[in-house]
Amino acid sequence: MSKKPRILVVNDDGITAPGIKALIEVAKELGDVTVVAPDSPQSGMGHAITIGKPLRLDKVNLYEGVEMYKCSGTPVDCVKLAVNKVFKGQKPDLCISGINHGLNNSINVIYSGTMSAAVEGAIESIPSIGFSLDDYTWDANFEDCKKYIKEICLQVMKNGLQQGTLLNVNFPNNSQPIKGIKICRQANAKWAEDFEERQDPYKRNYYWLTGVFQNNDKGEDSDVWALNNHYVSVVPVQFDMTAHHAISSLNQWTFDV
Amino acid sequence: MSKKPRILVVNDDGITAPGIKALIEVAKELGDVTVVAPDSPQSGMGHAITIGKPLRLDKVNLYEGVEMYKCSGTPVDCVKLAVNKVFKGQKPDLCISGINHGLNNSINVIYSGTMSAAVEGAIESIPSIGFSLDDYTWDANFEDCKKYIKEICLQVMKNGLQQGTLLNVNFPNNSQPIKGIKICRQANAKWAEDFEERQDPYKRNYYWLTGVFQNNDKGEDSDVWALNNHYVSVVPVQFDMTAHHAISSLNQWTFDV
Repeated sequence: MSKKPRILVVNDDGITAPGIKALIEVAKELGDVTVVAPDSPQSGMGHAITIGKPLRLDKVNLYEGVEMYKCSGTPVDCVKLAVNKVFKGQKPDLCISGINHGLNNSINVIYSGTMSAAVEGAIESIPSIGFSLDDYTWDANFEDCKKYIKEICLQVMKNGLQQGTLLNVNFPNNSQPIKGIKICRQANAKWAEDFEERQDPYKRNYYWLTGVFQNNDKGEDSDVWALNNHYVSVVPVQFDMTAHHAISSLNQWTFDV
Repeated sequence: MSKKPRILVVNDDGITAPGIKALIEVAKELGDVTVVAPDSPQSGMGHAITIGKPLRLDKVNLYEGVEMYKCSGTPVDCVKLAVNKVFKGQKPDLCISGINHGLNNSINVIYSGTMSAAVEGAIESIPSIGFSLDDYTWDANFEDCKKYIKEICLQVMKNGLQQGTLLNVNFPNNSQPIKGIKICRQANAKWAEDFEERQDPYKRNYYWLTGVFQNNDKGEDSDVWALNNHYVSVVPVQFDMTAHHAISSLNQWTFDV
């Protein structure tokens, strides 16, 4: 008798977000589901971990047939606690993160709590995928994502992923039907920040981070292109940040010290 | 008349840390120094940004001849605010982060606020370097690092760095003299977590994150090897996280959707 796959579900929008509910619904069709998710929104937390204060991890009962824990920490903390305290070192067969309310394409992979949770899963040698939808609203409609998520998870469980890699999957907005799946690279894009300056009632300045996403990439093999053309973008991501191509030129520098 | 280089100094241990004081002392020998650093310790914050609450940025006067600001946000927020509000879009010639009290070699690059600040500098197209010392104590001795920092900064300002790359520089502990500089790759290592479980006075459990650094890499071209052998490790880092080598095999998958 083959055992059902054990699936860890995590996110960064918090355990009550509609996006994680949609992901849990898909995961239940694929295996036994355990959820460890933040007790409050953790968007933009990147790969932060909690080292200066203790963490809470408490069982909750939100959806039938699903083991669920809320965690006071970051998305990466959730994965670490899941592996260590919930799975007790017996790693799950799949780690999926999301569905994020909002895109995590291109450079956003580095700021995103959703993607950082998936990266942490991969560091733990668990096949891992992050899912995000181009809709930032709380009542975003995740229905069209579901069959793609199921198929991508099945393919990952069947084929495996190369050691040290994971997948970053983004869905285009719901304005048009999805045309299919494109394997992509991360577009060369960045945020052009603009801090909005305000004054508090005590006449002291404070700043709100705002910004505009700037795509500097004309390539048709990028995730930005795929999403703009209503494809699901699938980018393989690695956590070895070495710029291997830059090593040889640095070796030609002469350090006078 | 050639203008002095404008140097942005940032860190994650906070603006009062001895490590940033040492870095400022070196930076003053190289150009005009502006410091934007967190008002409280931000270790382990990774590439987190502050999006759910406003930020404070206030001028302080700690060291003579240095323009200094403390910021209520993360190390990455500090760089964004520096570029946008302090330099007002006129980018500095160099962004240096640290000196961190503790190593940021290998996988630590992804958890480290020090390195994430340098990564953000590079995303902003500023030549950027993170510096860290293998000594986690507050009264760590940074003296032996200084001549290496000066020389590495001079080389970066002279030669430039490849677009999309930055440097991660780690110093061995002070137990032996430094043997020299090695250009390295990030070692294949990870943290094996072990959460310490305790009970609060109200009988509720909480967890402290602890862990052991596990090096799985026998290569003599890694940063872990260099540091163990008392060399300064210099790793070129990139923020394109695409696993380009995995794209071709993913393109052979057939998605049945």
